[in-house]
Amino acid sequence: MRTVDLIQKKRDGLELSTEEIQWLIDGYVDGSVPDYQMSALAMAIYFRGMSTREISDLTMAMVHSGDEIDLSAIPGIKVDKHSTGGVGDKVTLILAPLVASFGVPVAKMSGRGLGHTGGTLDKLESIKGYKIEVNQEDFIKQVQETGIAVIGQSDNLVKADKLLYALRDVTATVDIIPLIASSVMSKKIAAGADAILLDVTVGEGAFMKNIEDARILAQTMVDLGKAVGRKTVAVLTDMSQPVGRAIGNRLEILEALEILQGKGREDVSEFICELAQIMLSLANVEKSLEEVHQHLVNGAALKKFEEMVVAQGGDLDDLYRSVQVSHQVDVLAEEEGYISALPALEFGLFAMKLGAGRAVKTDELDYETGIVFHKKVGEAVSPGQAIATIYANENISENMLTNFRKNVKIEAERVNTKEILEIIS
Amino acid sequence: MRTVDLIQKKRDGLELSTEEIQWLIDGYVDGSVPDYQMSALAMAIYFRGMSTREISDLTMAMVHSGDEIDLSAIPGIKVDKHSTGGVGDKVTLILAPLVASFGVPVAKMSGRGLGHTGGTLDKLESIKGYKIEVNQEDFIKQVQETGIAVIGQSDNLVKADKLLYALRDVTATVDIIPLIASSVMSKKIAAGADAILLDVTVGEGAFMKNIEDARILAQTMVDLGKAVGRKTVAVLTDMSQPVGRAIGNRLEILEALEILQGKGREDVSEFICELAQIMLSLANVEKSLEEVHQHLVNGAALKKFEEMVVAQGGDLDDLYRSVQVSHQVDVLAEEEGYISALPALEFGLFAMKLGAGRAVKTDELDYETGIVFHKKVGEAVSPGQAIATIYANENISENMLTNFRKNVKIEAERVNTKEILEIIS
Repeated sequence: MRTVDLIQKKRDGLELSTEEIQWLIDGYVDGSVPDYQMSALAMAIYFRGMSTREISDLTMAMVHSGDEIDLSAIPGIKVDKHSTGGVGDKVTLILAPLVASFGVPVAKMSGRGLGHTGGTLDKLESIKGYKIEVNQEDFIKQVQETGIAVIGQSDNLVKADKLLYALRDVTATVDIIPLIASSVMSKKIAAGADAILLDVTVGEGAFMKNIEDARILAQTMVDLGKAVGRKTVAVLTDMSQPVGRAIGNRLEILEALEILQGKGREDVSEFICELAQIMLSLANVEKSLEEVHQHLVNGAALKKFEEMVVAQGGDLDDLYRSVQVSHQVDVLAEEEGYISALPALEFGLFAMKLGAGRAVKTDELDYETGIVFHKKVGEAVSPGQAIATIYANENISENMLTNFRKNVKIEAERVNTKEILEIIS
Repeated sequence: MRTVDLIQKKRDGLELSTEEIQWLIDGYVDGSVPDYQMSALAMAIYFRGMSTREISDLTMAMVHSGDEIDLSAIPGIKVDKHSTGGVGDKVTLILAPLVASFGVPVAKMSGRGLGHTGGTLDKLESIKGYKIEVNQEDFIKQVQETGIAVIGQSDNLVKADKLLYALRDVTATVDIIPLIASSVMSKKIAAGADAILLDVTVGEGAFMKNIEDARILAQTMVDLGKAVGRKTVAVLTDMSQPVGRAIGNRLEILEALEILQGKGREDVSEFICELAQIMLSLANVEKSLEEVHQHLVNGAALKKFEEMVVAQGGDLDDLYRSVQVSHQVDVLAEEEGYISALPALEFGLFAMKLGAGRAVKTDELDYETGIVFHKKVGEAVSPGQAIATIYANENISENMLTNFRKNVKIEAERVNTKEILEIIS
């Protein structure tokens, strides 16, 4: 087999066989297929696409390219959840303990944030003492004992994806549905998932800018999941505005605690309960929305969250303290009306510049900084009312405030929003 | 400027600017644009193509990436000729001295053969003592004194093409018209050509398998030539069967000598006279076909050839000797009829296996071996008549003979052939 012939085959619109795909991925990981051949292949895939069979072969070849976590020592169906990324997206922090509170094991590996999007790991690390590096044995033991663990991804998981992702990033081959799908799904499968809930975010602040592309990606991943024997449900969710109230690591932990105490914004609580209901159903546990919501109100989910924090070395006393910043500035409305847009991308970047996110991978985070919105899209404001509070460890210039305010759109007509746009299963 | 953005621009079907193309080629040559980005770009060009402006910018950026030969010390218009490759293609050996015999300077750099196609340099090197490595000063001096020189291409000519060609070869990005055109034309322009005759070969034995593709390549190169101020004419020529009688290095030298003495096959002599007429016209020297042909008959072209051989150290005594091989086998016709096909690719590969060509670049050649055809397509044969003679330094097995004969198609109906299929200017 010669790589050049396989590149040409794909370039000419033909299907690659299972063996050919396996050979390419094996070769890429062992170095015999160099980057310059892989990038040409990726570009050919951009133009030619891949069949469901090809995508599932690619995914499984990638799964086998590194460590595969064996969760069989944990009884029950292990359901994993993945979000394609968002702004203020603290969903996992609430969803994981909520699902675990019903006795469904949650053994989850999470990632870090980059650019305007945050990462669950960073948020958890803002909890004093919380360890995200846990070896596989302790990881499984923790889930066996507490029913929940959220840790960092092992370095050796899906080696091919690490290499491929870095390459795609510099060769204009990132936005290719088959490659996105196999990247996401290979990590979930290698991490031991029996079933998968995909939160495919849609909008300016998300990877998928419009619902059509998001739908194709979601359908591709659901089909792929079926093809490789993992029950998969995808939920298209709105990322035109940030999720919930807060953007910023500790600010989001605090919002998560509010929600876990049944005191969060109703929209985000309801949205998370719907996701939990789907995850439970994927584990063959059927619950009504009311039953799920009850676990937020009665402290069952919060208890699971605290158990996880303690099990991973987190300091419970420190957990509930307010953020400590040198500057706290309210942004006041200047006109009457309804908020019509809070562009997630803009506010994600704003928070990033405050230190809540990373422009490049090596940037250090300031866990305390961020934004809390008091009003979201569809809500009424009047002059002088606080729309948001900025938490910073620097002076907020007039310029920054103007820029912030410019991005808050206010109109006379009220627009409706919904969190879940579509469910694909 | 970021390479990834330029790849994406091309991928998305937009035009790259002059500055962007220059930046990419400069970066590729200095190593700041790595192979894996260049191969992704090449694949994007496969699908998106390039405008004439982009191709001419690419060509000139490539020209400037290495040495540029300054032929201004040689008076007159320097016309170069390039063939896209063929089997038994000894055209340059005759055409160059024929044109030079009219006082039009020929300062030519040639290449080697690979696979089933031969190279002019290899044929010249089969002449005892003939030096193909000549420094620029001596090269120009020789043309000033004798009016002709055919030497090897300088290693530093069009550096970008060397890198790019090696990369394209292993990334399924060879057969991309804009990249073929810029590769061919950049080498001619860097070698100092004022005007260019392109012999675009067509057929199974050529790079362009069908006339439609050949026409597009030819038109692309003619347009490109115009865009960069080099008068360019392209001739589409038939490469469904080998050119002339012989395949093999010394065998082709001997056939070239026959033609240069006015004793060659009429079809190939006429064809070369037509090409010479075009080259002369590109140098503003208008001659009738009869006048051109006269220089084959009266020894003027042969004299130029011998002057060149002597100037480059070749042994004139050795020049005319027959080939020396251990095995010489006639292939006899087994049926009555007209030859209807002599597939160039098959016979090119046959000769290659005898040692006349290289399977890989590092293979050593046997200059003496090859094939001489006594009959060509359209000519009558009867049982027992010799169709060809094989010259080998090994035993010709029954198997090889059967294989050879299998490729000679004989039919009852006579088919017509012509060498020049189309002229594009």
